[in-house]
Amino acid sequence: MARVVVDVTLKPEILDPQGRAVQGALGRLGLQGVTDVRQGKQFVIDLDGELDDARLALLEELAGTLLSNPVIENYTLTVQELA
Amino acid sequence: MARVVVDVTLKPEILDPQGRAVQGALGRLGLQGVTDVRQGKQFVIDLDGELDDARLALLEELAGTLLSNPVIENYTLTVQELA
Repeated sequence: MARVVVDVTLKPEILDPQGRAVQGALGRLGLQGVTDVRQGKQFVIDLDGELDDARLALLEELAGTLLSNPVIENYTLTVQELA
Repeated sequence: MARVVVDVTLKPEILDPQGRAVQGALGRLGLQGVTDVRQGKQFVIDLDGELDDARLALLEELAGTLLSNPVIENYTLTVQELA
């Protein structure tokens, strides 16, 4: 069994209005010194069996197409082997 | 300077229709053996100055109220010190 975590974030040059709204709210609620907030998505994917190279390659491809929009988003893929 | 990453996930007992949709799509696109997908949110918060205990405590509180809904969501908070 394997768990793959895909974090999807907006590219740095893309405006993030949700993050900006959270930044404002944190300040109004008393948290000082917040210079930036970016909001992203996270997918936690559980797979049975062993995660071989073929499945990992397909998962990489799908992370860059289905799970994220390559025009405006970056992704990172982290593999965790589960007991 | 510090960076705090807050990951917000639905509690395990809460149905995740978005995750279920992604699970179905991954299968249709040829990825075998996906047993579960959960979709969550991620906030990357940059702060200037040193992150002292008072600010960290406030951030913990806001992570559990502003950034997540404690009825249906869990959060994890990770502190990264930046150069």
